[in-house]
Amino acid sequence: MLATPPLQPRGEARDSPVAAVVLTGAEVDQTAGLLTLRERQEFAVFATAETLAAIAANPIFRVLAADLVTRKAVARDQPFALPGGMSAELFAVPGKVALYLEGEDPALAAETGANVGVELICGGSRLAYVPGAAAVPASLYERLARADVILFDGTLFHDDEMITTGTGNKTGRRMGHMPVGGADGTLAALAGLRGRRILIHINNTNPILVKDSPERRLVEAAGFEIAEDGMEIVL
Amino acid sequence: MLATPPLQPRGEARDSPVAAVVLTGAEVDQTAGLLTLRERQEFAVFATAETLAAIAANPIFRVLAADLVTRKAVARDQPFALPGGMSAELFAVPGKVALYLEGEDPALAAETGANVGVELICGGSRLAYVPGAAAVPASLYERLARADVILFDGTLFHDDEMITTGTGNKTGRRMGHMPVGGADGTLAALAGLRGRRILIHINNTNPILVKDSPERRLVEAAGFEIAEDGMEIVL
Repeated sequence: MLATPPLQPRGEARDSPVAAVVLTGAEVDQTAGLLTLRERQEFAVFATAETLAAIAANPIFRVLAADLVTRKAVARDQPFALPGGMSAELFAVPGKVALYLEGEDPALAAETGANVGVELICGGSRLAYVPGAAAVPASLYERLARADVILFDGTLFHDDEMITTGTGNKTGRRMGHMPVGGADGTLAALAGLRGRRILIHINNTNPILVKDSPERRLVEAAGFEIAEDGMEIVL
Repeated sequence: MLATPPLQPRGEARDSPVAAVVLTGAEVDQTAGLLTLRERQEFAVFATAETLAAIAANPIFRVLAADLVTRKAVARDQPFALPGGMSAELFAVPGKVALYLEGEDPALAAETGANVGVELICGGSRLAYVPGAAAVPASLYERLARADVILFDGTLFHDDEMITTGTGNKTGRRMGHMPVGGADGTLAALAGLRGRRILIHINNTNPILVKDSPERRLVEAAGFEIAEDGMEIVL
């Protein structure tokens, strides 16, 4: 709904360029955007059966009209075609179910369909998108090793950052996110990869957002980039 | 999640001034914003039992942590206190349940707890907020007659506007919205009220958004205002 007088309706008042959505999980920051894509325009949602089930359990997502928006369950390690000539493949990443689906005694991070990564293949180039990772086992490292661009979980720098900043009572690992720093953090785990490594999904407590912070200097010295709004990536 | 490097976390990195939310229904444009208020900060949600039930049926709203966000069911025509010294009252407005809750054979618009208006009382002044109305019966007119400011459903100007613009296949009335124009429209129904009348919830097909359109001139000649982003209202 728009209430800005100078805006003039046009022939294609509601045209959207979005032809497909690929989800890596059912967390709010991954799925709530679907609610703003709800006008009567055709597109496809690709996700694991677990993620589609989590969405289907919420009546509010019925605003995505079933005659226009197709929900397609895809298995891990099975390439599928996307509109526009790209293809994609979901792959296992250790992680957690969405916070709102956790019970009283939540399970440890695991490799399930609730949290995956996506590899986009465009011509001979590959991009790996991993917004949430609790660890980097060998199988995941191998997948990342073939990527030209890697967008990777940069939620917290320090595992206890939410606690020390007074913004939460959980560690990053408890939330299914490995820290960027430390001996078992992302900088160490992704060392030696040939692709362009870009940290994404950065929490607003993360000191790598602060220019000239020691943590930011560490990240830059390790050859990682820090994503920013409006960033464009050419594959 | 923020990824803009110049932004610096501060002591109160997540402070929000929102102390209470009052809902008039469970439609996406009324409730999806709750998902962005989900950090660990205290606030209250006031709504009818029907609207709270619609929200509770969606697991995704569990991101509003139950220990911080209280959901308070309020009956129509019963004043309740809001933080900051204001009080409020919900009242009957003919309308429909949220689109995603409609069955195959949806009921006609009716006065139920699924769609209400809210009156805000601040000192001796009153503001009526009615984002969706299918009609203005005498009881509603009386309520609006005592308001100093009236924010009222301006979704469509012409009942068949979605159809003629090719953006939908439903009339406004089918969606629970009376048109702004015509003998049985809002301009006619709200004629003679003493309060400041401002149209809100304006669809992007509505020609009153177009400067110098005949419809906009009609609205202005009838003494109505058209809401715009950033508008401030002093009661």
